[in-house]
Amino acid sequence: MEILRVASRSNLNPTAGAIASVLEENGVVEIHAIGAGAVNQTVKAIAIARRMVEEEGKAPIKVIPGFIELEIDGKTKTGIRFIVER
Amino acid sequence: MEILRVASRSNLNPTAGAIASVLEENGVVEIHAIGAGAVNQTVKAIAIARRMVEEEGKAPIKVIPGFIELEIDGKTKTGIRFIVER
Repeated sequence: MEILRVASRSNLNPTAGAIASVLEENGVVEIHAIGAGAVNQTVKAIAIARRMVEEEGKAPIKVIPGFIELEIDGKTKTGIRFIVER
Repeated sequence: MEILRVASRSNLNPTAGAIASVLEENGVVEIHAIGAGAVNQTVKAIAIARRMVEEEGKAPIKVIPGFIELEIDGKTKTGIRFIVER
């Protein structure tokens, strides 16, 4: 499964476009975000991607959020994993 | 549809319990959050609610995020609306 990493500074429209693009290709995409700003940015990008996908007459996308342990610079941090499916 | 409002200071476990409880009763719940802290808290509460629901052998829950205009203290703010369904 293709994994996208979203940060609080990720630009919304390109991130949404990447989500929509991977959904288009694979039907599913996994997104990792660490911290409130990154999680917020991810949710907004998914909401925009949803509009893109739905405007094209596709089935609505669904999100399954969960926790994930990620290693960043040698330290383990708890982040959020979003599975986004068509 | 029952609407829960989540703030950045909402306690996670009671919020998750409320989400799981409304899902149990109605099969669907709508959650509103304004700001990165509140959106982050909502996603974490949904992830915890998901564990509660799945531990009970229920179908996994799905989230549909979108934008919503909310009036707070007479001002219009853009927030995130989460539709959570079993």
